[in-house]
Amino acid sequence: MTKHPFDQALALEPAGADRPDTFMGHTSPAYWNMVGPFGGSTAATALQAVLQHPALLGEPVSLTVNYAAATSEGAFNITATPVRTNRSTQHWVISLSQPDAQGHEQVAMTATAMTALRRDTWHLNDMPMPQVAKPQDVPRADMRGAMEWLNRYEMRFARGAIPTDWHGDEKRSPDSVTQIWVRDDVPRALDFTSIAAMADVFYPRIWLRRPLRVPGGTVSMTTYFHASTAQLKEVGTGYVLAQGQGQAFRHGFFDQAAQLWSEAGTLLVTSHQLVYFKE
Amino acid sequence: MTKHPFDQALALEPAGADRPDTFMGHTSPAYWNMVGPFGGSTAATALQAVLQHPALLGEPVSLTVNYAAATSEGAFNITATPVRTNRSTQHWVISLSQPDAQGHEQVAMTATAMTALRRDTWHLNDMPMPQVAKPQDVPRADMRGAMEWLNRYEMRFARGAIPTDWHGDEKRSPDSVTQIWVRDDVPRALDFTSIAAMADVFYPRIWLRRPLRVPGGTVSMTTYFHASTAQLKEVGTGYVLAQGQGQAFRHGFFDQAAQLWSEAGTLLVTSHQLVYFKE
Repeated sequence: MTKHPFDQALALEPAGADRPDTFMGHTSPAYWNMVGPFGGSTAATALQAVLQHPALLGEPVSLTVNYAAATSEGAFNITATPVRTNRSTQHWVISLSQPDAQGHEQVAMTATAMTALRRDTWHLNDMPMPQVAKPQDVPRADMRGAMEWLNRYEMRFARGAIPTDWHGDEKRSPDSVTQIWVRDDVPRALDFTSIAAMADVFYPRIWLRRPLRVPGGTVSMTTYFHASTAQLKEVGTGYVLAQGQGQAFRHGFFDQAAQLWSEAGTLLVTSHQLVYFKE
Repeated sequence: MTKHPFDQALALEPAGADRPDTFMGHTSPAYWNMVGPFGGSTAATALQAVLQHPALLGEPVSLTVNYAAATSEGAFNITATPVRTNRSTQHWVISLSQPDAQGHEQVAMTATAMTALRRDTWHLNDMPMPQVAKPQDVPRADMRGAMEWLNRYEMRFARGAIPTDWHGDEKRSPDSVTQIWVRDDVPRALDFTSIAAMADVFYPRIWLRRPLRVPGGTVSMTTYFHASTAQLKEVGTGYVLAQGQGQAFRHGFFDQAAQLWSEAGTLLVTSHQLVYFKE
Protein backbone atom coordinates (compact mmCIF):
# COMPACT_ATOMS: atom_id res chain seq x y z
CA MET A 1 0.00 0.00 0.00
CA THR A 2 1.34 3.42 -0.90
CA LYS A 3 1.65 5.85 1.98
CA HIS A 4 -0.66 8.87 2.05
CA PRO A 5 1.17 11.95 0.66
CA PHE A 6 0.83 13.66 4.05
CA ASP A 7 2.52 10.74 5.79
CA GLN A 8 5.22 10.77 3.11
CA ALA A 9 5.78 14.50 3.75
CA LEU A 10 6.04 13.87 7.50
CA ALA A 11 8.35 10.84 7.31
CA LEU A 12 11.29 11.30 9.71
CA GLU A 13 14.25 9.01 10.32
CA PRO A 14 16.13 9.03 13.65
CA ALA A 15 19.57 10.57 13.11
CA GLY A 16 21.26 7.99 15.28
CA ALA A 17 21.77 6.82 18.85
CA ASP A 18 24.28 9.61 19.60
CA ARG A 19 21.72 12.28 18.59
CA PRO A 20 18.47 10.99 20.13
CA ASP A 21 16.61 14.30 19.68
CA THR A 22 17.40 14.69 15.98
CA PHE A 23 15.48 13.34 12.99
CA MET A 24 16.14 13.59 9.27
CA GLY A 25 13.39 14.57 6.85
CA HIS A 26 12.91 15.74 3.29
CA THR A 27 10.64 18.39 1.80
CA SER A 28 7.67 17.06 -0.17
CA PRO A 29 6.84 18.28 -3.69
CA ALA A 30 3.22 17.32 -2.97
CA TYR A 31 2.99 20.09 -0.32
CA TRP A 32 5.04 22.74 -2.14
CA ASN A 33 3.91 26.34 -1.76
CA MET A 34 5.52 29.36 -3.52
CA VAL A 35 9.15 29.39 -2.32
CA GLY A 36 9.05 26.58 0.24
CA PRO A 37 6.76 23.96 1.75
CA PHE A 38 3.20 24.79 2.84
CA GLY A 39 3.63 26.22 6.38
CA GLY A 40 1.00 23.85 7.70
CA SER A 41 3.04 20.82 6.67
CA THR A 42 6.14 22.36 8.31
CA ALA A 43 4.16 22.84 11.54
CA ALA A 44 2.96 19.25 11.30
CA THR A 45 6.56 18.08 10.81
CA ALA A 46 7.62 19.89 14.00
CA LEU A 47 4.84 18.10 15.84
CA GLN A 48 5.72 14.79 14.20
CA ALA A 49 9.27 15.01 15.62
CA VAL A 50 7.76 15.34 19.10
CA LEU A 51 5.31 12.49 18.52
CA GLN A 52 8.10 10.16 17.30
CA HIS A 53 10.40 10.97 20.23
CA PRO A 54 10.81 7.97 22.55
CA ALA A 55 10.57 10.21 25.66
CA LEU A 56 7.13 11.62 24.70
CA LEU A 57 4.69 12.17 27.58
CA GLY A 58 1.01 12.57 26.72
CA GLU A 59 -0.61 14.27 23.74
CA PRO A 60 -0.09 17.68 22.09
CA VAL A 61 -1.85 20.61 23.75
CA SER A 62 0.15 23.56 22.39
CA LEU A 63 2.41 24.20 19.40
CA THR A 64 4.13 27.40 18.29
CA VAL A 65 6.05 27.45 15.02
CA ASN A 66 8.20 30.37 13.83
CA TYR A 67 9.13 30.47 10.15
CA ALA A 68 12.62 31.98 10.23
CA ALA A 69 13.37 31.40 6.56
CA ALA A 70 11.96 29.46 3.62
CA THR A 71 12.90 25.79 3.87
CA SER A 72 14.81 24.86 0.71
CA GLU A 73 13.85 21.86 -1.39
CA GLY A 74 15.67 18.81 -0.09
CA ALA A 75 16.81 17.23 3.14
CA PHE A 76 16.57 18.83 6.57
CA ASN A 77 17.37 18.03 10.17
CA ILE A 78 14.78 18.53 12.86
CA THR A 79 15.64 18.46 16.56
CA ALA A 80 12.99 18.10 19.27
CA THR A 81 14.28 18.28 22.83
CA PRO A 82 12.15 17.61 25.91
CA VAL A 83 13.62 20.39 28.08
CA ARG A 84 11.30 19.89 31.04
CA THR A 85 9.19 16.90 31.99
CA ASN A 86 6.75 17.31 34.86
CA ARG A 87 4.31 14.80 36.32
CA SER A 88 1.66 15.32 33.66
CA THR A 89 3.13 17.90 31.25
CA GLN A 90 6.21 18.12 29.04
CA HIS A 91 7.83 21.11 27.32
CA TRP A 92 9.63 20.84 23.98
CA VAL A 93 12.06 23.05 22.07
CA ILE A 94 12.25 22.28 18.36
CA SER A 95 14.29 23.56 15.43
CA LEU A 96 14.62 22.71 11.75
CA SER A 97 17.89 23.38 9.96
CA GLN A 98 19.53 22.84 6.62
CA PRO A 99 23.16 23.23 5.55
CA ASP A 100 24.01 26.36 3.58
CA ALA A 101 26.37 26.43 0.60
CA GLN A 102 29.34 26.28 2.99
CA GLY A 103 27.89 23.30 4.86
CA HIS A 104 26.95 25.29 7.98
CA GLU A 105 23.57 24.37 9.47
CA GLN A 106 21.17 27.32 9.20
CA VAL A 107 17.96 27.52 11.24
CA ALA A 108 14.86 27.73 9.03
CA MET A 109 12.23 27.15 11.74
CA THR A 110 12.05 27.32 15.52
CA ALA A 111 9.19 25.90 17.54
CA THR A 112 8.03 25.08 21.04
CA ALA A 113 5.42 22.55 22.04
CA MET A 114 3.73 21.31 25.14
CA THR A 115 2.33 17.83 25.58
CA ALA A 116 0.22 16.63 28.49
CA LEU A 117 -1.72 13.72 29.85
CA ARG A 118 -5.31 14.66 29.15
CA ARG A 119 -8.00 13.91 31.69
CA ASP A 120 -11.75 14.22 31.61
CA THR A 121 -12.96 17.44 33.21
CA TRP A 122 -15.86 19.80 33.02
CA HIS A 123 -15.96 21.08 29.45
CA LEU A 124 -17.68 23.76 27.43
CA ASN A 125 -17.45 25.24 23.92
CA ASP A 126 -17.54 29.00 24.40
CA MET A 127 -17.17 29.60 20.69
CA PRO A 128 -20.02 27.63 19.13
CA MET A 129 -19.67 26.61 15.50
CA PRO A 130 -21.18 29.32 13.27
CA GLN A 131 -24.27 28.40 11.32
CA VAL A 132 -23.13 27.67 7.79
CA ALA A 133 -24.37 25.61 4.85
CA LYS A 134 -23.51 21.90 5.01
CA PRO A 135 -20.37 20.83 3.12
CA GLN A 136 -22.34 19.00 0.45
CA ASP A 137 -24.35 22.19 -0.23
CA VAL A 138 -21.22 24.28 -0.89
CA PRO A 139 -19.33 23.82 -4.18
CA ARG A 140 -15.76 22.61 -4.01
CA ALA A 141 -13.26 25.36 -4.85
CA ASP A 142 -11.33 24.79 -8.06
CA MET A 143 -7.65 25.13 -7.12
CA ARG A 144 -6.19 23.75 -10.35
CA GLY A 145 -3.22 25.76 -11.53
CA ALA A 146 -2.53 27.17 -8.06
CA MET A 147 0.19 26.08 -5.63
CA GLU A 148 0.68 22.34 -5.47
CA TRP A 149 -0.27 21.91 -1.78
CA LEU A 150 -3.77 23.25 -2.48
CA ASN A 151 -4.42 20.06 -4.46
CA ARG A 152 -3.92 18.06 -1.25
CA TYR A 153 -7.07 19.54 0.27
CA GLU A 154 -10.72 19.55 -0.56
CA MET A 155 -11.93 23.06 0.28
CA ARG A 156 -15.48 24.31 0.22
CA PHE A 157 -15.83 28.01 1.05
CA ALA A 158 -18.99 28.59 3.08
CA ARG A 159 -17.98 32.26 3.38
CA GLY A 160 -15.10 34.51 2.35
CA ALA A 161 -13.78 32.75 -0.75
CA ILE A 162 -10.75 34.15 -2.57
CA PRO A 163 -11.83 37.40 -4.28
CA THR A 164 -12.29 37.41 -8.01
CA ASP A 165 -12.41 41.23 -8.30
CA TRP A 166 -9.09 42.67 -7.02
CA HIS A 167 -10.46 46.20 -6.56
CA GLY A 168 -8.22 47.04 -3.57
CA ASP A 169 -10.93 49.00 -1.75
CA GLU A 170 -11.35 48.02 1.89
CA LYS A 171 -14.59 50.03 2.07
CA ARG A 172 -16.26 47.58 -0.31
CA SER A 173 -15.08 44.62 1.75
CA PRO A 174 -16.97 44.25 5.03
CA ASP A 175 -14.62 41.96 6.97
CA SER A 176 -11.85 39.36 6.79
CA VAL A 177 -13.83 36.27 7.82
CA THR A 178 -13.37 33.04 5.87
CA GLN A 179 -15.15 29.78 6.67
CA ILE A 180 -13.98 26.66 4.86
CA TRP A 181 -15.14 23.07 4.99
CA VAL A 182 -11.86 21.26 4.59
CA ARG A 183 -10.49 17.71 4.53
CA ASP A 184 -7.53 15.90 3.09
CA ASP A 185 -7.70 14.82 -0.55
CA VAL A 186 -7.16 11.84 -0.67
CA PRO A 187 -9.13 11.29 2.54
CA ARG A 188 -7.05 10.55 5.66
CA ALA A 189 -8.27 10.02 9.22
CA LEU A 190 -7.77 13.21 11.23
CA ASP A 191 -4.95 13.28 13.81
CA PHE A 192 -2.89 15.91 15.63
CA THR A 193 -0.48 16.44 12.73
CA SER A 194 -3.18 16.90 10.09
CA ILE A 195 -5.28 19.27 12.20
CA ALA A 196 -2.09 21.27 12.94
CA ALA A 197 -1.62 21.64 9.18
CA MET A 198 -5.28 22.51 8.55
CA ALA A 199 -5.00 25.42 11.02
CA ASP A 200 -2.90 27.07 8.28
CA VAL A 201 -5.11 26.48 5.21
CA PHE A 202 -6.30 30.07 4.89
CA TYR A 203 -5.18 32.36 2.09
CA PRO A 204 -3.83 35.73 3.37
CA ARG A 205 -6.58 37.66 5.18
CA ILE A 206 -5.37 40.88 3.58
CA TRP A 207 -6.49 39.57 0.18
CA LEU A 208 -10.05 39.45 1.49
CA ARG A 209 -9.95 42.64 3.55
CA ARG A 210 -8.33 44.83 0.89
CA PRO A 211 -8.55 42.86 -2.34
CA LEU A 212 -5.05 43.28 -3.78
CA ARG A 213 -2.90 40.27 -4.49
CA VAL A 214 0.11 41.32 -2.41
CA PRO A 215 2.80 38.82 -1.39
CA GLY A 216 2.53 37.50 2.17
CA GLY A 217 3.55 34.61 4.36
CA THR A 218 3.12 33.30 7.88
CA VAL A 219 5.97 34.21 10.23
CA SER A 220 4.61 32.64 13.44
CA MET A 221 1.71 30.37 14.27
CA THR A 222 0.41 29.04 17.59
CA THR A 223 -2.16 26.27 17.83
CA TYR A 224 -3.91 24.94 20.93
CA PHE A 225 -5.31 21.42 20.69
CA HIS A 226 -8.55 21.11 22.62
CA ALA A 227 -9.43 17.70 21.17
CA SER A 228 -8.16 14.39 22.46
CA THR A 229 -6.91 11.55 20.26
CA ALA A 230 -10.32 9.91 20.66
CA GLN A 231 -12.18 13.06 19.57
CA LEU A 232 -10.01 13.43 16.48
CA LYS A 233 -10.63 9.76 15.66
CA GLU A 234 -14.37 10.39 15.81
CA VAL A 235 -13.99 12.94 13.00
CA GLY A 236 -12.24 10.32 10.90
CA THR A 237 -12.17 11.39 7.24
CA GLY A 238 -15.04 13.84 7.79
CA TYR A 239 -14.99 17.57 7.17
CA VAL A 240 -13.61 20.21 9.51
CA LEU A 241 -14.98 23.76 9.53
CA ALA A 242 -12.04 26.19 9.59
CA GLN A 243 -12.78 29.84 10.39
CA GLY A 244 -10.14 32.53 10.13
CA GLN A 245 -10.29 36.29 10.74
CA GLY A 246 -7.78 39.15 10.85
CA GLN A 247 -7.82 41.52 13.80
CA ALA A 248 -5.13 44.11 13.00
CA PHE A 249 -3.29 44.99 9.78
CA ARG A 250 -0.33 47.35 10.25
CA HIS A 251 3.39 47.89 9.63
CA GLY A 252 3.69 45.06 7.14
CA PHE A 253 2.07 42.44 9.38
CA PHE A 254 -1.40 41.22 10.22
CA ASP A 255 -2.71 38.57 12.59
CA GLN A 256 -5.28 35.86 12.02
CA ALA A 257 -7.37 34.20 14.71
CA ALA A 258 -8.71 30.77 13.73
CA GLN A 259 -11.04 28.09 15.08
CA LEU A 260 -11.55 24.60 13.69
CA TRP A 261 -14.66 22.57 14.51
CA SER A 262 -15.73 19.04 13.70
CA GLU A 263 -18.91 18.80 11.64
CA ALA A 264 -20.61 17.71 14.88
CA GLY A 265 -19.67 21.11 16.40
CA THR A 266 -16.75 20.17 18.68
CA LEU A 267 -14.14 22.95 18.82
CA LEU A 268 -11.03 20.90 17.98
CA VAL A 269 -8.32 23.58 17.90
CA THR A 270 -7.93 27.32 18.23
CA SER A 271 -5.03 29.05 16.53
CA HIS A 272 -3.48 32.47 16.09
CA GLN A 273 -0.89 33.47 13.55
CA LEU A 274 1.11 36.48 12.40
CA VAL A 275 1.60 37.09 8.68
CA TYR A 276 3.88 39.54 6.90
CA PHE A 277 2.72 41.32 3.77
CA LYS A 278 4.29 43.53 1.16
CA GLU A 279 2.56 46.44 -0.46
CA MET B 1 15.48 58.58 41.77
CA THR B 2 14.16 55.14 42.69
CA LYS B 3 13.51 52.84 39.78
CA HIS B 4 9.91 51.89 38.98
CA PRO B 5 9.10 48.44 40.49
CA PHE B 6 8.50 47.05 36.99
CA ASP B 7 11.98 48.16 35.89
CA GLN B 8 13.41 46.68 39.07
CA ALA B 9 11.68 43.36 38.29
CA LEU B 10 13.08 43.40 34.75
CA ALA B 11 16.65 44.36 35.66
CA LEU B 12 19.10 42.00 33.92
CA GLU B 13 22.89 41.91 34.15
CA PRO B 14 25.03 40.50 31.31
CA ALA B 15 26.55 37.19 32.45
CA GLY B 16 29.91 38.03 30.92
CA ALA B 17 31.77 38.38 27.63
CA ASP B 18 32.12 34.60 27.23
CA ARG B 19 28.32 34.14 27.45
CA PRO B 20 27.00 37.04 25.34
CA ASP B 21 23.43 35.63 25.14
CA THR B 22 23.00 35.11 28.89
CA PHE B 23 21.74 37.57 31.48
CA MET B 24 21.26 37.24 35.22
CA GLY B 25 18.07 38.37 36.91
CA HIS B 26 16.22 38.02 40.19
CA THR B 27 12.54 37.46 40.94
CA SER B 28 10.69 40.47 42.33
CA PRO B 29 8.56 40.30 45.49
CA ALA B 30 6.55 43.24 44.08
CA TYR B 31 5.25 41.01 41.23
CA TRP B 32 4.77 37.81 43.24
CA ASN B 33 1.77 35.64 42.35
CA MET B 34 0.76 32.42 44.20
CA VAL B 35 3.75 30.09 43.81
CA GLY B 36 5.95 32.14 41.50
CA PRO B 37 6.16 35.48 39.74
CA PHE B 38 3.18 36.96 37.83
CA GLY B 39 3.39 35.31 34.38
CA GLY B 40 3.15 38.69 32.69
CA SER B 41 6.34 39.87 34.38
CA THR B 42 8.09 36.64 33.33
CA ALA B 43 6.98 37.23 29.72
CA ALA B 44 8.25 40.81 29.97
CA THR B 45 11.58 39.54 31.31
CA ALA B 46 11.96 37.22 28.30
CA LEU B 47 11.36 40.20 26.04
CA GLN B 48 13.73 42.37 28.08
CA ALA B 49 16.58 39.91 27.45
CA VAL B 50 15.98 40.32 23.70
CA LEU B 51 15.76 44.11 23.95
CA GLN B 52 19.04 44.31 25.92
CA HIS B 53 20.92 42.02 23.52
CA PRO B 54 23.59 43.93 21.56
CA ALA B 55 22.69 42.10 18.32
CA LEU B 56 19.01 43.19 18.39
CA LEU B 57 17.45 44.06 15.03
CA GLY B 58 14.23 46.08 15.04
CA GLU B 59 11.30 45.97 17.46
CA PRO B 60 9.24 43.10 18.92
CA VAL B 61 6.46 41.76 16.70
CA SER B 62 5.84 38.32 18.24
CA LEU B 63 6.52 36.65 21.60
CA THR B 64 5.61 33.16 22.80
CA VAL B 65 6.33 32.19 26.40
CA ASN B 66 5.89 28.67 27.80
CA TYR B 67 5.72 28.29 31.57
CA ALA B 68 7.45 24.96 32.12
CA ALA B 69 7.60 25.22 35.91
CA ALA B 70 7.10 27.84 38.60
CA THR B 71 10.13 30.10 38.86
CA SER B 72 11.46 29.90 42.42
CA GLU B 73 12.13 32.99 44.47
CA GLY B 74 15.66 34.16 43.85
CA ALA B 75 18.21 34.45 41.07
CA PHE B 76 17.78 33.08 37.54
CA ASN B 77 19.66 32.94 34.27
CA ILE B 78 17.97 33.96 31.05
CA THR B 79 19.47 33.20 27.65
CA ALA B 80 18.27 34.92 24.47
CA THR B 81 19.90 33.70 21.26
CA PRO B 82 19.36 35.32 17.85
CA VAL B 83 19.23 32.07 15.85
CA ARG B 84 18.42 33.66 12.50
CA THR B 85 18.88 37.24 11.35
CA ASN B 86 17.40 38.21 8.00
CA ARG B 87 17.42 41.57 6.23
CA SER B 88 14.52 43.00 8.22
CA THR B 89 13.54 40.25 10.68
CA GLN B 90 15.25 38.35 13.49
CA HIS B 91 14.24 35.13 15.29
CA TRP B 92 15.05 34.48 18.94
CA VAL B 93 15.11 31.40 21.16
CA ILE B 94 14.93 32.16 24.88
CA SER B 95 15.06 30.13 28.06
CA LEU B 96 15.01 30.86 31.77
CA SER B 97 16.70 28.46 34.17
CA GLN B 98 17.54 28.11 37.84
CA PRO B 99 19.82 25.65 39.63
CA ASP B 100 18.11 22.82 41.49
CA ALA B 101 19.19 21.54 44.91
CA GLN B 102 22.05 19.65 43.22
CA GLY B 103 23.20 22.74 41.35
CA HIS B 104 21.94 21.53 37.95
CA GLU B 105 20.27 24.22 35.83
CA GLN B 106 16.58 23.41 35.35
CA VAL B 107 14.49 25.08 32.64
CA ALA B 108 11.53 26.99 34.10
CA MET B 109 10.48 28.88 30.95
CA THR B 110 11.05 28.54 27.21
CA ALA B 111 10.20 31.29 24.74
CA THR B 112 10.59 32.37 21.15
CA ALA B 113 10.39 35.89 19.79
CA MET B 114 10.55 37.67 16.49
CA THR B 115 11.74 41.22 16.04
CA ALA B 116 11.50 43.25 12.84
CA LEU B 117 12.13 46.64 11.31
CA ARG B 118 8.69 48.18 11.15
CA ARG B 119 7.65 50.21 8.12
CA ASP B 120 4.59 52.28 7.39
CA THR B 121 2.05 50.40 5.33
CA TRP B 122 -1.66 50.34 4.71
CA HIS B 123 -3.30 49.68 8.06
CA LEU B 124 -6.68 48.79 9.47
CA ASN B 125 -8.18 47.76 12.83
CA ASP B 126 -10.45 44.84 12.04
CA MET B 127 -11.35 44.42 15.70
CA PRO B 128 -12.64 47.84 16.75
CA MET B 129 -12.52 48.68 20.44
CA PRO B 130 -15.80 47.66 22.08
CA GLN B 131 -18.01 50.44 23.38
CA VAL B 132 -17.46 50.58 27.13
CA ALA B 133 -17.76 53.20 29.88
CA LYS B 134 -14.78 55.56 30.20
CA PRO B 135 -12.15 54.59 32.78
CA GLN B 136 -13.08 57.45 35.11
CA ASP B 137 -16.71 56.23 35.10
CA VAL B 138 -15.78 52.71 36.24
CA PRO B 139 -14.78 52.17 39.88
CA ARG B 140 -11.29 50.88 40.58
CA ALA B 141 -11.27 47.26 41.73
CA ASP B 142 -10.17 46.76 45.31
CA MET B 143 -7.39 44.16 45.18
CA ARG B 144 -6.13 44.58 48.75
CA GLY B 145 -5.36 41.26 50.39
CA ALA B 146 -4.96 39.46 47.05
CA MET B 147 -1.71 38.45 45.35
CA GLU B 148 1.00 41.06 45.57
CA TRP B 149 1.34 41.72 41.80
CA LEU B 150 -2.28 42.88 41.64
CA ASN B 151 -1.24 45.93 43.65
CA ARG B 152 1.06 46.94 40.80
CA TYR B 153 -1.90 47.61 38.52
CA GLU B 154 -4.86 49.92 38.55
CA MET B 155 -7.74 47.84 37.20
CA ARG B 156 -11.22 49.07 36.39
CA PHE B 157 -13.58 46.32 35.23
CA ALA B 158 -15.92 47.66 32.54
CA ARG B 159 -17.34 44.14 32.18
CA GLY B 160 -16.76 40.68 33.64
CA ALA B 161 -15.36 41.47 37.08
CA ILE B 162 -14.31 38.64 39.39
CA PRO B 163 -17.50 36.88 40.56
CA THR B 164 -18.68 37.45 44.10
CA ASP B 165 -21.16 34.55 44.06
CA TRP B 166 -19.28 31.28 43.44
CA HIS B 167 -22.37 29.33 42.43
CA GLY B 168 -20.57 27.06 39.95
CA ASP B 169 -23.44 27.06 37.44
CA GLU B 170 -22.36 27.83 33.87
CA LYS B 171 -26.01 28.22 32.85
CA ARG B 172 -26.28 31.36 34.99
CA SER B 173 -23.12 32.81 33.44
CA PRO B 174 -23.63 34.01 29.88
CA ASP B 175 -20.02 34.20 28.67
CA SER B 176 -16.35 34.53 29.65
CA VAL B 177 -15.71 38.09 28.45
CA THR B 178 -13.81 40.49 30.69
CA GLN B 179 -12.96 44.09 29.78
CA ILE B 180 -10.54 45.95 32.03
CA TRP B 181 -9.17 49.46 31.93
CA VAL B 182 -5.65 48.89 33.17
CA ARG B 183 -2.45 50.83 33.78
CA ASP B 184 0.61 50.52 35.96
CA ASP B 185 0.36 51.77 39.54
CA VAL B 186 2.57 53.79 40.00
CA PRO B 187 2.12 55.18 36.49
CA ARG B 188 4.82 54.23 33.96
CA ALA B 189 4.99 55.13 30.27
CA LEU B 190 3.84 52.16 28.18
CA ASP B 191 6.47 50.18 26.29
CA PHE B 192 6.81 46.70 24.74
CA THR B 193 7.68 45.03 28.04
CA SER B 194 4.79 46.53 30.00
CA ILE B 195 2.19 45.81 27.31
CA ALA B 196 3.54 42.21 27.14
CA ALA B 197 2.85 41.92 30.86
CA MET B 198 -0.60 43.54 30.60
CA ALA B 199 -1.65 40.90 28.06
CA ASP B 200 -1.66 38.51 31.06
CA VAL B 201 -3.65 40.58 33.60
CA PHE B 202 -6.82 38.53 33.39
CA TYR B 203 -7.99 36.26 36.19
CA PRO B 204 -8.78 32.70 34.97
CA ARG B 205 -11.66 32.75 32.46
CA ILE B 206 -13.07 29.58 34.03
CA TRP B 207 -13.84 31.55 37.21
CA LEU B 208 -16.19 33.75 35.18
CA ARG B 209 -17.63 31.03 32.94
CA ARG B 210 -18.33 28.53 35.72
CA PRO B 211 -17.98 30.45 38.98
CA LEU B 212 -15.91 28.06 41.11
CA ARG B 213 -12.57 29.14 42.49
CA VAL B 214 -10.48 26.31 41.03
CA PRO B 215 -6.69 26.54 40.80
CA GLY B 216 -5.31 27.47 37.39
CA GLY B 217 -2.29 28.94 35.69
CA THR B 218 -1.05 29.97 32.26
CA VAL B 219 1.05 27.32 30.52
CA SER B 220 1.71 29.14 27.23
CA MET B 221 1.08 32.65 25.96
CA THR B 222 1.63 34.23 22.56
CA THR B 223 1.45 37.98 21.98
CA TYR B 224 1.60 39.86 18.67
CA PHE B 225 2.67 43.50 18.87
CA HIS B 226 0.82 45.60 16.32
CA ALA B 227 1.94 48.93 17.80
CA SER B 228 5.24 50.64 17.08
CA THR B 229 7.45 52.26 19.71
CA ALA B 230 5.97 55.61 18.71
CA GLN B 231 2.39 54.38 19.12
CA LEU B 232 3.15 52.97 22.57
CA LYS B 233 4.75 56.30 23.51
CA GLU B 234 1.57 58.10 22.51
CA VAL B 235 -0.32 56.09 25.15
CA GLY B 236 2.17 57.21 27.78
CA THR B 237 0.77 56.61 31.25
CA GLY B 238 -2.80 56.43 29.91
CA TYR B 239 -5.20 53.52 30.23
CA VAL B 240 -5.27 50.42 28.07
CA LEU B 241 -8.50 48.48 27.49
CA ALA B 242 -7.76 44.76 27.89
CA GLN B 243 -10.40 42.31 26.68
CA GLY B 244 -10.12 38.57 27.28
CA GLN B 245 -12.43 35.69 26.37
CA GLY B 246 -12.27 31.90 26.58
CA GLN B 247 -13.11 29.83 23.52
CA ALA B 248 -12.84 26.21 24.68
CA PHE B 249 -12.70 24.61 28.13
CA ARG B 250 -11.82 20.92 28.13
CA HIS B 251 -9.47 18.24 29.50
CA GLY B 252 -8.05 20.46 32.21
CA PHE B 253 -7.16 23.34 29.88
CA PHE B 254 -8.85 26.39 28.41
CA ASP B 255 -7.71 29.08 26.02
CA GLN B 256 -8.09 32.83 26.24
CA ALA B 257 -8.06 35.22 23.30
CA ALA B 258 -7.17 38.80 24.20
CA GLN B 259 -6.98 42.23 22.60
CA LEU B 260 -5.52 45.40 24.11
CA TRP B 261 -6.44 48.83 22.79
CA SER B 262 -5.25 52.33 23.62
CA GLU B 263 -7.96 54.64 24.95
CA ALA B 264 -7.89 56.29 21.52
CA GLY B 265 -8.94 52.94 19.98
CA THR B 266 -5.66 51.70 18.47
CA LEU B 267 -5.36 47.90 18.69
CA LEU B 268 -1.93 47.65 20.33
CA VAL B 269 -1.54 43.89 20.77
CA THR B 270 -3.48 40.67 20.26
CA SER B 271 -2.72 37.66 22.41
CA HIS B 272 -3.75 34.05 22.91
CA GLN B 273 -2.97 31.87 25.87
CA LEU B 274 -3.56 28.37 27.20
CA VAL B 275 -4.36 27.88 30.88
CA TYR B 276 -4.54 24.68 32.90
CA PHE B 277 -7.19 24.24 35.56
CA LYS B 278 -7.94 21.73 38.28
CA GLU B 279 -11.38 20.63 39.25
